[in-house]
Amino acid sequence: MKCKKCGKKAVANLRAYRISLCADCYVEFYKRLVERSIKKYKILSKEEQILLAVSGGKDSSAMASVLKEIGFEFEMLYIDLGIGDYSRDSKQKVEELSDLLKVRLNIVELKDYGFTIPQARGRVCSVCGTAKRYIMNRFARENGFDVVATGHTAEDIASFYLKNIAGNQQAFAEKLLPRIEPFDAKVVARARPLFEISEKENMLYAILKKLPFKSGECLYAPKPDWKEIVYDIELKKPGFVKNFVRGLTVEVKKPSETRYCSICGEIASGDICSFCKIRSKFSKSF
Amino acid sequence: MKCKKCGKKAVANLRAYRISLCADCYVEFYKRLVERSIKKYKILSKEEQILLAVSGGKDSSAMASVLKEIGFEFEMLYIDLGIGDYSRDSKQKVEELSDLLKVRLNIVELKDYGFTIPQARGRVCSVCGTAKRYIMNRFARENGFDVVATGHTAEDIASFYLKNIAGNQQAFAEKLLPRIEPFDAKVVARARPLFEISEKENMLYAILKKLPFKSGECLYAPKPDWKEIVYDIELKKPGFVKNFVRGLTVEVKKPSETRYCSICGEIASGDICSFCKIRSKFSKSF
Repeated sequence: MKCKKCGKKAVANLRAYRISLCADCYVEFYKRLVERSIKKYKILSKEEQILLAVSGGKDSSAMASVLKEIGFEFEMLYIDLGIGDYSRDSKQKVEELSDLLKVRLNIVELKDYGFTIPQARGRVCSVCGTAKRYIMNRFARENGFDVVATGHTAEDIASFYLKNIAGNQQAFAEKLLPRIEPFDAKVVARARPLFEISEKENMLYAILKKLPFKSGECLYAPKPDWKEIVYDIELKKPGFVKNFVRGLTVEVKKPSETRYCSICGEIASGDICSFCKIRSKFSKSF
Repeated sequence: MKCKKCGKKAVANLRAYRISLCADCYVEFYKRLVERSIKKYKILSKEEQILLAVSGGKDSSAMASVLKEIGFEFEMLYIDLGIGDYSRDSKQKVEELSDLLKVRLNIVELKDYGFTIPQARGRVCSVCGTAKRYIMNRFARENGFDVVATGHTAEDIASFYLKNIAGNQQAFAEKLLPRIEPFDAKVVARARPLFEISEKENMLYAILKKLPFKSGECLYAPKPDWKEIVYDIELKKPGFVKNFVRGLTVEVKKPSETRYCSICGEIASGDICSFCKIRSKFSKSF
């Protein structure tokens, strides 16, 4: 398998893009992918004060590195959730990342709020989500940031969407956009610069760039049923995940005024309705 | 496996409802399922002039039979698309159905419009869709019907939705509701009385009631990729399809006025924000 760009030995075969690339060309490709996405969906602007929420995982490490590469300035925020070795190792990774990228790292300890995640037995994930959203937003606002960027991937968004629609949580599903502007002065904008990038793409970039990141899931991580469903669909329909999350960004245009077909008088979107167009093509008597 | 209702030998194990039923109890169960769905989503009313679009397949045959059973009056419409033996056999089935149910059957021949489906090589399915929608709507309006009901199933809706979202056709996806009111005087309302009923449920009802229906797909039917994806998800998550299509009906409520937490001052949906609720539970110092 050869790199489609330079002919060197390829390290990646990107089915969604039908392209094979070598290490150097992949890193360039990934950078341009993220850059184009940020531009197209107006996810971040270089005039903003940006806070990056980082976890020590591959996705947020890749996000920090690539944003730096394409010329964004930002600070990072790590929330220490107090999950034993997992939190300790993750913190170490973000500290290494901060040194490597020469980007300021802020750390908030959940225990300063009087509790840690392991206390929330039985509802760890929902408590963790609430705590992270609260702290990200409050820290960002109190420290003068305009926007918090998170490392959510295309698979995160697609699986979250399916899960929520299937659970009658349509309202939640509506929030899955690459950028959400604040609806109140106390709320800071949210950005997802990797919303159309897949986990595999982030992983490959993180490995090729030798970024520090912690592999392995949080011990409380739920069975990733919906993620696996999304992976399965992607296997059968390469490109599904990307198309799906892009689909979520499309605003539904209200139909313009109703028109009537100049031939048959039925409703039409243009001068002639689709049925009469078909008839005029296939019917000899028409 | 015994019927959960009467103890007789069960013929069906409905995973989505976690219930096993015998033939008689299943027929009753199915009837009540459709009846409740029609009521809940206001899909059809007994005061309306209803036209049922029937194809000769299991779904629309089941729809006609069950609507009759639960006391709806209607006429049926069969559109002869001119697809050789397939159309001929299908027509025969709807004629038998019409005799059995003692319901008037109307037949429109596409060839009266000067062409038949096999002429549209290469784009058969899109031409067929356009032709059916056009004829259903026009026939219904010109003959004084208030609503056209089609036999779309939960799987049809879920797979169509995923396919369209993945294809950036969000606008299309928005139309997948159990009832769509006309946006213009030339348009007749559309209803999908089986929108939360699965194909398997229709099939079982059609078999147990010994309804006439044609099995076997149209020879032009595309590879049912998206349907199979939906079946796969349902296998892994029994109940997915039903929950999914119900999810599509949920209107997103605009958040009411923003409130602020009486403890920390951050935004909240009630008097106290979710983070402070968590803190008050877990933190000793709070």
